[in-house]
Amino acid sequence: MKRIGVCLGGCGVFDGSEIHESVAVIVALARVGADAVFMAPDVPQMHVVNHSTGEVAVGETRNVLEESARIARGEILRLEEVSAADFDGLIFPGGFGAAKNLSNFATQGVDCSVDPEVRRIVLETQAAGKPLGFICIAPAMGAAILGKVGEVSLTIGSDASTASALEAMGATHQETSVDEICVDEKAKVVSTSAYMLAENAAQVADGIEKLVQKVVELTS
Amino acid sequence: MKRIGVCLGGCGVFDGSEIHESVAVIVALARVGADAVFMAPDVPQMHVVNHSTGEVAVGETRNVLEESARIARGEILRLEEVSAADFDGLIFPGGFGAAKNLSNFATQGVDCSVDPEVRRIVLETQAAGKPLGFICIAPAMGAAILGKVGEVSLTIGSDASTASALEAMGATHQETSVDEICVDEKAKVVSTSAYMLAENAAQVADGIEKLVQKVVELTS
Repeated sequence: MKRIGVCLGGCGVFDGSEIHESVAVIVALARVGADAVFMAPDVPQMHVVNHSTGEVAVGETRNVLEESARIARGEILRLEEVSAADFDGLIFPGGFGAAKNLSNFATQGVDCSVDPEVRRIVLETQAAGKPLGFICIAPAMGAAILGKVGEVSLTIGSDASTASALEAMGATHQETSVDEICVDEKAKVVSTSAYMLAENAAQVADGIEKLVQKVVELTS
Repeated sequence: MKRIGVCLGGCGVFDGSEIHESVAVIVALARVGADAVFMAPDVPQMHVVNHSTGEVAVGETRNVLEESARIARGEILRLEEVSAADFDGLIFPGGFGAAKNLSNFATQGVDCSVDPEVRRIVLETQAAGKPLGFICIAPAMGAAILGKVGEVSLTIGSDASTASALEAMGATHQETSVDEICVDEKAKVVSTSAYMLAENAAQVADGIEKLVQKVVELTS
């Protein structure tokens, strides 16, 4: 049975992993008979957003690992203790968590830095010849890591300014529609736009199912 | 376009709505072309559980509406301001939120009480001849409300003690397997076991898709 890592960045679109995208990955993995290996860095969130108002909850702090565990139903590893030997492929759902907690792309754009443990696991995964999947805004983080070490094609859908940012960080952007995936066979990197373009959760689930199938295919 | 209410009870299996089940409802609604109308009571959670350790986070408090908004991506109504005229049918995902926040079945069992606004909207929905859906442990809450006012058949899968509790609260329990739904055509109440029985998220999604299709069918 294939084991696919799912690296989360909190729980909730505005300050963590996008929940619909994360669950779409989990359902798709179960459908292809692969095990999900959940992980998240044991670090504080950039901030906490009250999702019913959209406002920052001033003074409140939450931990990325603890909040990610909500999506994982408790079974989650500290990213700090995970190596690429623990899985056959690795997927990053989107949501602002990828751009606020796993990296700071949301505030720093093309000058962003990536959490050192996230950078480490991504580079280890690629060095081991194992596939990577980036969803929604997570390809920006992927570009920030992989664009500096080699050629990589990624998609964030069709948003021109985010596409330019990916290119500025050394990646090649491939425009896609909501039901398509971008596959870089050589780099073994798969991406899909999900809520960068999707108008509903069914579109998200369909695009992510294709991404998961391709990531699993690339493990063999 | 049909509008189906989704009443949430927080965000996370151990202290709120079960995330996979909630997203399965949302995806299934999108697949049948129905709009999701999210709602949650504006009340404090019973407690906060650190999902990475399973322990109660002593001294921490969270609001059910604000946490539920994470699953709803921000678009959520205060249950206190919702009436049965706002939707064509109403679904309750499971998770301990249904047994800790929307009711206190988790601690009080057959002597549980239900949040007054949850009780009100369920009774209003049934009085309006509109269908109700209860998932996983939420049928216990459904039994606590509906078992006292008339005949209702519900399922929580096959757990004998929970099934007995439903019967003690005045409902008829129907044993089901993970891929089945229990349909009470007369009461217009549909239920499915989801994570009461499911071994993975794909089984959850499949059972819930059937429930959603039946709830939507019963609106016409």
